[in-house]
Amino acid sequence: MRMLVVGSVAFDDIQTPFGVKKNVLGGAASHFSIAASPLIEPKIIAVIGHDFPQKYIKYLSDFGIDTSGIEKSPDKTFHWSGFYEHDMAVAHTRSTELGAFASFEPKLTEEDKQRQVLFLANIDPVIQYKVLKQMKNVQLVGLDSMNFWIESKKKDVWKVIKEADIIFLNDVEVRMLAGEASLIKAAKVIQKHGPDVVIVKKGEHGVMAVSHGEIFVSPAYPTEKVIDPTGAGDTFAGGCMSYLVANTQPGKKITNDVLRRAVSWGSAVASFAVEGFSTTGVAKATKKAIEGRVAVLKKLSAF
Amino acid sequence: MRMLVVGSVAFDDIQTPFGVKKNVLGGAASHFSIAASPLIEPKIIAVIGHDFPQKYIKYLSDFGIDTSGIEKSPDKTFHWSGFYEHDMAVAHTRSTELGAFASFEPKLTEEDKQRQVLFLANIDPVIQYKVLKQMKNVQLVGLDSMNFWIESKKKDVWKVIKEADIIFLNDVEVRMLAGEASLIKAAKVIQKHGPDVVIVKKGEHGVMAVSHGEIFVSPAYPTEKVIDPTGAGDTFAGGCMSYLVANTQPGKKITNDVLRRAVSWGSAVASFAVEGFSTTGVAKATKKAIEGRVAVLKKLSAF
Repeated sequence: MRMLVVGSVAFDDIQTPFGVKKNVLGGAASHFSIAASPLIEPKIIAVIGHDFPQKYIKYLSDFGIDTSGIEKSPDKTFHWSGFYEHDMAVAHTRSTELGAFASFEPKLTEEDKQRQVLFLANIDPVIQYKVLKQMKNVQLVGLDSMNFWIESKKKDVWKVIKEADIIFLNDVEVRMLAGEASLIKAAKVIQKHGPDVVIVKKGEHGVMAVSHGEIFVSPAYPTEKVIDPTGAGDTFAGGCMSYLVANTQPGKKITNDVLRRAVSWGSAVASFAVEGFSTTGVAKATKKAIEGRVAVLKKLSAF
Repeated sequence: MRMLVVGSVAFDDIQTPFGVKKNVLGGAASHFSIAASPLIEPKIIAVIGHDFPQKYIKYLSDFGIDTSGIEKSPDKTFHWSGFYEHDMAVAHTRSTELGAFASFEPKLTEEDKQRQVLFLANIDPVIQYKVLKQMKNVQLVGLDSMNFWIESKKKDVWKVIKEADIIFLNDVEVRMLAGEASLIKAAKVIQKHGPDVVIVKKGEHGVMAVSHGEIFVSPAYPTEKVIDPTGAGDTFAGGCMSYLVANTQPGKKITNDVLRRAVSWGSAVASFAVEGFSTTGVAKATKKAIEGRVAVLKKLSAF
């Protein structure tokens, strides 16, 4: 199955206790696609500004990512600036300049519309829905969103969730969206609206996946070297979705066994992401290196 | 091996979104000992006031707990009052009246001093140390503490930690004590000071146990019915310690395999505790019921 990823390709300014980086490669679609690249060759649909350097496009292409759907706008590139405090748990936003992304209308080719797998990274749910409705043969839809959209366009978030198969949200977003304090109850409420799988990202506490009839809890890989958590959630989703795609036959349902291995794969890939600024950490996640960490995760909670 | 538990037996006033309870049985030693009672028969060393009802003593005895070391003071019983908000994550203290506990000087009999296992529940680290020094034949020392003592008597906390084998702290306390943002680094810093095992309690996110050469991460049992989290940490410790005692031969080191099963046992027992006010939840944790939940935990993170 071939995957289309719709989301941001951006500049990030990042400050963590380990340093400051400016104008580094960011954006959900970048993190997601690099994370997916050891297993599949996703195609990115995004918009960049006139100021976006060709070297970043080449960098993405070198991972086997199809960048032909990244259109260039006369506007500026989406630019996020933020910082992390000592505990690295929360990203504090200094500024968000949407630039070219403010008027982004994803354009799909006929070949794009025929793809079987779609990942809608965190963008305006109205745009997510528009993209979804153009797909003609889609079998697996993954979706990410964030507190900003849940607060400002809740109805639109629900509308697109209803048509997604697997959704990725963090614990705060799951509670906010469902209006439930219990994370399990909240995930189940969301699941009742449509998706087969609700994946709750809990940062250093790992991931909880609620699928039909079962719950899977995956610890985070115990890395001591957290340099920059930016994009870790997108990286997790990229790892997880790529594993599902690489291990599910077209037309077949995702089994709970494959889901468990996919979540663990995603956790392993995400653990590389936090070990370097921007995408330098995840760039080191070769298939073999990921397999090594999956083996550690397998033992971590076994008894 | 026979266990001595030194800690509080108290009154609690508890308010959660599910109701208000006044003058219910509380105290770390109560929660710990009831949690341990399906596997062992611990003896409590504590002090109560003149106002403490005999029915609570009988209630503890009915679990097979030895209450002969609970002395009666002319003062009032230790009384905690607090509440939980919607998410139940944090206990907010309204008042703490130490009462008889303010001048508590644990008195050990010769038989007490000969016991092989000691659990020092969360009390003044100076008192914890005094008790520890009276033990003549102790082989396994478990220890709990809290932010209040880490802030006010840090040196004394370190002094007693150095002589403990297994310590139980929550994530905030571990970070505070070690002065490290990374939980794993922080646990390792504490471990270097002496204890074989550092157990980090993370509430709904489960438990991380750092022992020599390995890390074990145990998810929390996925209960949807959290009524009152008071004492859940003590209950976890009681379950965990009782399993270690029941499955380790005198003079033998705790193996990592037994530790993993003990942590899982503790998590299962604690999941009962939160399902009812005071000790009414954990009172339902029969050996068979706990085994059922351990089986669920075993599957929860397996892949």
